[in-house]
Amino acid sequence: VRVEIVAIGTELLLGQIVDTNSATIADELARCGMDCNFQTRVGDNHARIVSALRIGLDRADAIIVCGGLGPTQDDITREAIAEVMGVELRRDSMALEHLERIFSSYRMEMPESNLRQADVPAGAVLIPQLTGTAPGLICPVGDGVIYAVPGVPAEMEEMLTTAIIPDLQARSGDQAVIASRTLRTVGIGEAKLSELVAPRLEALDREGAGAPTIAFLANLAEGVKVRITVKAPDKASANRRLAVEEAAVREILTDAVYGLDDETLESVIGALLRERGLTLAVAESFTGGLIASRIVAIPGASAYFRGGIVAYDPEVKFSLLGVPRGPVISEDAAVAMAEGVRKLLGADVAIATTGVAGPAREEGQEPGTVFLATALSGAASIATAMTVVGSRSRVRDVGALRALNLLRRRLLLA
Amino acid sequence: VRVEIVAIGTELLLGQIVDTNSATIADELARCGMDCNFQTRVGDNHARIVSALRIGLDRADAIIVCGGLGPTQDDITREAIAEVMGVELRRDSMALEHLERIFSSYRMEMPESNLRQADVPAGAVLIPQLTGTAPGLICPVGDGVIYAVPGVPAEMEEMLTTAIIPDLQARSGDQAVIASRTLRTVGIGEAKLSELVAPRLEALDREGAGAPTIAFLANLAEGVKVRITVKAPDKASANRRLAVEEAAVREILTDAVYGLDDETLESVIGALLRERGLTLAVAESFTGGLIASRIVAIPGASAYFRGGIVAYDPEVKFSLLGVPRGPVISEDAAVAMAEGVRKLLGADVAIATTGVAGPAREEGQEPGTVFLATALSGAASIATAMTVVGSRSRVRDVGALRALNLLRRRLLLA
Repeated sequence: VRVEIVAIGTELLLGQIVDTNSATIADELARCGMDCNFQTRVGDNHARIVSALRIGLDRADAIIVCGGLGPTQDDITREAIAEVMGVELRRDSMALEHLERIFSSYRMEMPESNLRQADVPAGAVLIPQLTGTAPGLICPVGDGVIYAVPGVPAEMEEMLTTAIIPDLQARSGDQAVIASRTLRTVGIGEAKLSELVAPRLEALDREGAGAPTIAFLANLAEGVKVRITVKAPDKASANRRLAVEEAAVREILTDAVYGLDDETLESVIGALLRERGLTLAVAESFTGGLIASRIVAIPGASAYFRGGIVAYDPEVKFSLLGVPRGPVISEDAAVAMAEGVRKLLGADVAIATTGVAGPAREEGQEPGTVFLATALSGAASIATAMTVVGSRSRVRDVGALRALNLLRRRLLLA
Repeated sequence: VRVEIVAIGTELLLGQIVDTNSATIADELARCGMDCNFQTRVGDNHARIVSALRIGLDRADAIIVCGGLGPTQDDITREAIAEVMGVELRRDSMALEHLERIFSSYRMEMPESNLRQADVPAGAVLIPQLTGTAPGLICPVGDGVIYAVPGVPAEMEEMLTTAIIPDLQARSGDQAVIASRTLRTVGIGEAKLSELVAPRLEALDREGAGAPTIAFLANLAEGVKVRITVKAPDKASANRRLAVEEAAVREILTDAVYGLDDETLESVIGALLRERGLTLAVAESFTGGLIASRIVAIPGASAYFRGGIVAYDPEVKFSLLGVPRGPVISEDAAVAMAEGVRKLLGADVAIATTGVAGPAREEGQEPGTVFLATALSGAASIATAMTVVGSRSRVRDVGALRALNLLRRRLLLA
């Protein structure tokens, strides 16, 4: 099926908001093998919304309209869809009950203006709303269909996966289950990674239509994600096929794979520390708190994270961490920082970073020169050197990512 | 003038990339008082690009096309525009020279495929390219015009401000200069802020067309930006009018204004520390390195930043920072942390954070409970308490922002 996306809101046209909803919907459509050839953004203007919907219906089988379902006078998506359908709005008793329930749960009186959210085009089917006040709509128009969802990302996503995608599949007569699994990797660049996976991609190509698909998505702070998607007659066979494909990709990428789906490097590290009953300390120079901040982002980090030292001034490295006086941008200094912070904060394991984030050279070394180290109680410390190309913020992000990965690898062996 | 934006790229339609270019262009058009009623995204498909351009030219005076000017076979924007113009592509000698110059400056031979970037629709005017390989294009079509710019944000922005906006102004017969100034604020929410500025907005409304406009833009990590835009016959009178309006807004918002245009809270703090010849240390609990990381993001921070302690475990607060044993989520603990880190790292001034980021309660206190403190050599310490509503990451972001603001205010008095 061909699906178009129409995002509604004058704030989008003024550039006050970046339209992430369209990207989320497009990604989900692509994952499910549905074509999306056009996306349109239009303001809170009745005639223009109607025109955008009509143009879309001429080109595609379905339109997903995002936004303009709120209670204010600016929210006119319902009226525009009704015009395109050639029907009137009517007050829906189920939607009204839902609104009343929501407001009474907040012990608030419902403002008159919210009543509009219960007005739906005649012939539309409601998509139930779990958290917000605006129901979604499934609106048949001739052979086509317009889906309307709120602009609030969480509400939109819920309706997309629970109602719209299944409805689109049913319309296309497609009974298949689409399932994905994302392998998260770190330490291999996107180009090298797709080179490594290329033979597997070719094998899947030879399998032809219906073979699993593999997509790559790079992120500076998280590494490259490898998403495997399969289409199968039922959930059980989808999961079996995913498991086979996951094993094949894991065999190629081995321990560059650090997690699955929503796992992050810091959540994986947290789980490893818990399993092994170890506590962590960090010492940071050029990363300046980025690593500590990522560790603390995980709820429950207090079970294993002692704390960190941002030793930005060399004097802090000498006096607090016991780094020997001399150059501080070196493997030796990184090791001394890791060992020093481990002892100072009474932790079992520690990581440390030192380097030149730029833009200027330091100690005669180029921006991007980075040294990382781990220290583990009762074991020899390990250090590594690398060069990161790019801006000050890129050097810091990549440095933090690689330091976390060094820690993960160390914990796997611990 | 009415301008539409067409963003080109299959990766946009697959949701692999969020289209930030359209938002940047839309923001600049709005700032210059030009209407943008529709934005379209379309993939690397000749017929669909042609159709999107034709639909746009029917509705608007000008189209800005973004992307598809690269050297690969996927980059077909030039061909699509030529078809809409009803002309052929011809190889442009200036564009060719530019390409040859770029490759020879890299000491690289130019790949055959890059020659395509010198092919432009007959009748198009080139927009010179400073950094990349693809020139921009100004393509007249009847009474309308199509502008083509590369998808690389920095290259797009440069062409937008230096060539496209002036050309649009010239076409509309508008000789006016448009200038903006952004006041950055912290500590007042967007709703309260617009309430405070409302009387000024009403006064500007009464002035009628040609009066300065004021727009608000909220950001969790940076506070609310207040952008003043004026349109005037020349640059000097634009600047005079901006100065008047800036003074009026500053009188309303007083010291909630921390900076102008590209200044950040951390760059302003850096400048204050330099001016006063003071050094800084930070002690963080629930913010866990966020504050240190923002301080270190400023190039040259080594001139005033000593370092930080992420005292996540209470034991680190007691043993390293000298916080008295007992509850650590309190004003007293925040003050002890600030004073402790100031002395430990030998700094003149320090800030500290302690609180409950959530999701669980701690020490019987609700998530969002936050205590901040500053310590200054030879002066009494100052602490403050606040409650932040929202997720763990929101509590941490807002806590860091408010702590930085507390430091700024302290430095202003120092």
